[in-house]
Amino acid sequence: MDSVLKKVMKRIKPSRREERKVEREVKGFVEELEKRIEKKGYDAEVLVGGSYAKGTWLPDPDVDVFVRFGEGNNLSERLREVLKGLKYEEMRASRNYYRIGRFEVIPILRINSPEEAKNPMDVSPFHVDFVRKNLKRPDDVRLLKVFCKAIGVYGAESYVSGFSGYVLELLICYYGSFKRLFEEVEDWRPKVYLSFSKKRERLSKAKLRSPLILVDPVLPTRNAAASLNYENFSKFVFNARLFLRRPSTKFFEAKPIDEDFLKKRSSKRGTKLFLKKVRIKGKRDVFLAKLKRKLGRIKSRVEGYGFSVYDYGFQELGDRVLIYFEFETWRCSRKGRHLGPPVWVPKEHFERFLKKWGDVYVHGTRLVADVERVDDARVLLRDLLREYDV
Amino acid sequence: MDSVLKKVMKRIKPSRREERKVEREVKGFVEELEKRIEKKGYDAEVLVGGSYAKGTWLPDPDVDVFVRFGEGNNLSERLREVLKGLKYEEMRASRNYYRIGRFEVIPILRINSPEEAKNPMDVSPFHVDFVRKNLKRPDDVRLLKVFCKAIGVYGAESYVSGFSGYVLELLICYYGSFKRLFEEVEDWRPKVYLSFSKKRERLSKAKLRSPLILVDPVLPTRNAAASLNYENFSKFVFNARLFLRRPSTKFFEAKPIDEDFLKKRSSKRGTKLFLKKVRIKGKRDVFLAKLKRKLGRIKSRVEGYGFSVYDYGFQELGDRVLIYFEFETWRCSRKGRHLGPPVWVPKEHFERFLKKWGDVYVHGTRLVADVERVDDARVLLRDLLREYDV
Repeated sequence: MDSVLKKVMKRIKPSRREERKVEREVKGFVEELEKRIEKKGYDAEVLVGGSYAKGTWLPDPDVDVFVRFGEGNNLSERLREVLKGLKYEEMRASRNYYRIGRFEVIPILRINSPEEAKNPMDVSPFHVDFVRKNLKRPDDVRLLKVFCKAIGVYGAESYVSGFSGYVLELLICYYGSFKRLFEEVEDWRPKVYLSFSKKRERLSKAKLRSPLILVDPVLPTRNAAASLNYENFSKFVFNARLFLRRPSTKFFEAKPIDEDFLKKRSSKRGTKLFLKKVRIKGKRDVFLAKLKRKLGRIKSRVEGYGFSVYDYGFQELGDRVLIYFEFETWRCSRKGRHLGPPVWVPKEHFERFLKKWGDVYVHGTRLVADVERVDDARVLLRDLLREYDV
Repeated sequence: MDSVLKKVMKRIKPSRREERKVEREVKGFVEELEKRIEKKGYDAEVLVGGSYAKGTWLPDPDVDVFVRFGEGNNLSERLREVLKGLKYEEMRASRNYYRIGRFEVIPILRINSPEEAKNPMDVSPFHVDFVRKNLKRPDDVRLLKVFCKAIGVYGAESYVSGFSGYVLELLICYYGSFKRLFEEVEDWRPKVYLSFSKKRERLSKAKLRSPLILVDPVLPTRNAAASLNYENFSKFVFNARLFLRRPSTKFFEAKPIDEDFLKKRSSKRGTKLFLKKVRIKGKRDVFLAKLKRKLGRIKSRVEGYGFSVYDYGFQELGDRVLIYFEFETWRCSRKGRHLGPPVWVPKEHFERFLKKWGDVYVHGTRLVADVERVDDARVLLRDLLREYDV
């Protein structure tokens, strides 16, 4: 295992040259911000945060830069004043922030302890401090991030529901190393409860819904892994077990779910494949989160019509998304059974059903009629995608 | 409605000639039995029961003849002695009885009240007495029987789960006439509770499972309609409502579910039809009851494979049974998903699943593999029918 990890590390760790390049960029950007803040006379300081500050970043990183204000409301507006004249993109969130190249410039409030936070973002500097103090092997976080990316479980966004960078950092803090973590994950079984303090914390029910309860050491009422779902937890355990059985660099290389892969898999399974490429419109995160919800609903509706879906999902390919539905059954009878109310409903309803549907009979306890319907899952799917504006 | 019922009655009521013919046969048979009993010196008398005794029989009737013994066990054996030399067929039941032509010769025990019954059969003479005393319109029972037969809900046998003759007689006793019954059925809604006494009886839970609780007036701890299921209850209510809307003699004519009917219906629905004719082996009732259970299980298994069944069942055609399955979906992908245990099972199980299935991945929280399977419902059905010896 050690030799495999070493090989991977060589590939994924930013080179000295890149380190210096990013360092220069960060320094320049921070100085620029500080000058602008001084000019405005704001009581605020600039902090570098995120994976960059924690030394767990991967090549070509995004860098979080916090502008921490001493007090007050309208932080986003005041930060916008600071950035005036720069080419920024405003990002909608519970508190708006700004994107400039690789930098995410985030307005936060200066607080004495995490409990005083007005917004989850305000807690971020405490996260940075905790990880800096407790993380002995930042490179192991890099390995872990690449592993999770490759198996598709990296990211706490709602359209991923996987592990956030912070969760992965905490896991390495907690277990000490990548190797030790995996040895423990091999025996993970939900619910897994991890806490840096001996005190059993009282978390609300909603925070206990996830298979992993990782008590946030800087705000112990919070489950840092609250957005992880069971499927991704399971994928992680599964791949960790496979990796321990037979370590290989392959686990760190994402296999893209592209047209070619999907077609081959479908023909091996003998399923019917439906593909559609759509362009990402608007903000990527919002678009993908919505898309995921819509596809889930469409899948349920397709199954409601009696077809069965083997697999479905989407995959980003640059500025486009490849949507796929793979059908286990995709043809059905031309007519389907339309279920009405029980036969003993009030006479008016009985009468209405008969008038509406004509040839009515009994199935179980209910009035039913055979009605024309779409007999091809692909036609149905095309209609539904249109209905949901996908 | 009255003219429709009159027309039907003309068709279904035994002619004077038949009445006389059956009467002669019954008289002759009873005398023969009485002679034989006397010869044996048994303390027993012969009673004519069933629909014949109650005047609710239909053309070419079966006639129940009770041989009521004064005391003792081994009633079946003693009755067999009586019948020695006659061409009888022994019928298996909780107490065996005998069939000779149209006669069912049933050994029962003389008791003073229904509560003393050793066997449900012992209560029969009390049923006969009750109906004779309380049934004002026996011809209306005839109408009701033909109606129920035509819509397929007549018979308390487990492969029908419909209305027994006795239940139909009680319903006419209770409501007074066919017309009045239907006017009430129009508003039936489970559970329907009918009792001849004002006292609310305490029936066991099992007896309350049926949608109709019809307290047996001669044994009030019994639900006379216990074997009626919801589907047949619903069919009865449905057809009663239809009949009241537009009375017609058609409701009294069974539409046979034969090959021709099934093929036409299937082609209208665009389903895939599977037909098989099998010869009835052994006792008809036993054969059909078993067949019904087997087909129910086969249907579940077929659906477990991802196919969906629109309709299925069987229909007697003389000494054969026509079995039919009508498929809503009948083709599926060549491979199916084989579900294994959750990914976090003990390592030995994990290992075993991987070794056995090779190309394993995660679906939800479980280990799964794509495996070859039958992709045609008809092939699967043929295999299952063989497996269940149908």
